[in-house]
Amino acid sequence: MTVRHEKITVPTTMREETIDITPRVKAAVTRAKVHEGFVAVTVAHTTAAVFVNENADPDVQKDLLTALERMVPRDAKYAHAEGNGPAHVKAVLVGNSVTLAIRNAEVELGTWQGLYFVELDGPRERTATITVIGD
Amino acid sequence: MTVRHEKITVPTTMREETIDITPRVKAAVTRAKVHEGFVAVTVAHTTAAVFVNENADPDVQKDLLTALERMVPRDAKYAHAEGNGPAHVKAVLVGNSVTLAIRNAEVELGTWQGLYFVELDGPRERTATITVIGD
Amino acid sequence: MTVRHEKITVPTTMREETIDITPRVKAAVTRAKVHEGFVAVTVAHTTAAVFVNENADPDVQKDLLTALERMVPRDAKYAHAEGNGPAHVKAVLVGNSVTLAIRNAEVELGTWQGLYFVELDGPRERTATITVIGD
Repeated sequence: MTVRHEKITVPTTMREETIDITPRVKAAVTRAKVHEGFVAVTVAHTTAAVFVNENADPDVQKDLLTALERMVPRDAKYAHAEGNGPAHVKAVLVGNSVTLAIRNAEVELGTWQGLYFVELDGPRERTATITVIGD
Repeated sequence: MTVRHEKITVPTTMREETIDITPRVKAAVTRAKVHEGFVAVTVAHTTAAVFVNENADPDVQKDLLTALERMVPRDAKYAHAEGNGPAHVKAVLVGNSVTLAIRNAEVELGTWQGLYFVELDGPRERTATITVIGD
Repeated sequence: MTVRHEKITVPTTMREETIDITPRVKAAVTRAKVHEGFVAVTVAHTTAAVFVNENADPDVQKDLLTALERMVPRDAKYAHAEGNGPAHVKAVLVGNSVTLAIRNAEVELGTWQGLYFVELDGPRERTATITVIGD
């Protein structure tokens, strides 16, 4: 069995944005030489997250950020005094890890699926950990 | 160590509905003959998702769909022009994968827990991948 | 390869609260003697959940509970007759499992990250399962 980690750097340039990290996750799986197993992508930040969704129309990503803002509005009251209270809540809603199957040495993603890093309190220098396990 | 994948077909019949796939996940774990490990259920769609919640009262499933509609209303504005903008957002909120422990060859689920596929833009022919890893 | 489970008891004392289980997850990883792999924490309840977020300012945890209440209000209508309808929905939004990488025998958590159990319909005697897999 192989276990292989790669830490990638994800620089962000806006307060909120989504960044397609699919090619980097696929490349890490190829480098791990695992044919059957899992890959987990985890984010060690509390105001950023990862998710899987549509890769074709960038408007889907915009809609997600707009909808999160409607659900967790910046102008509501937050006890956390640093001004990024809503970013923490959004990060919990989206989640800090994604797990995908690896079959025949390929990440099991649908035709329209991409794997996205979402910045919720940027711009910052961020990282994500890609862990591959399998045979 | 064993890694075993099964792809199941999940036909849906409504625009939004939840479908209990617990028996199919349990059967896949039995077929994999893994005593100790993990099972991950992943969905390769961008307007469907998976989650774990109550299996006793079907009203809990209805409440979930109602609450998601209240949070991500169909009549809000979405940039995505295909009319299923809210379905994409709901799919991210619920999540496209679930991970559960396998102990003594059984999926570690509570008495009141079931594993559900949720259709958010149906009806469609859907699939889910069940991946088992362990000994 | 090692697969090791630990079931921990999490007694809760309030209707809603977050409980830091990071030290217990780290101790379970140490006991499993796994250097490289994964740990998954799963909750076998339908009105409780787990998540990763800030461990420094407890106000972040309060903000999360307040924001969830705003999104899934207790005074909205729920079909589920037991009075804990919103708790079920909140549990799905937060999620019943968290996956983290293990590197060099350490759980890969950021400086400001902790792993939290969230009670949404307490007080109750709860449990969580910590599963470690790797070498």
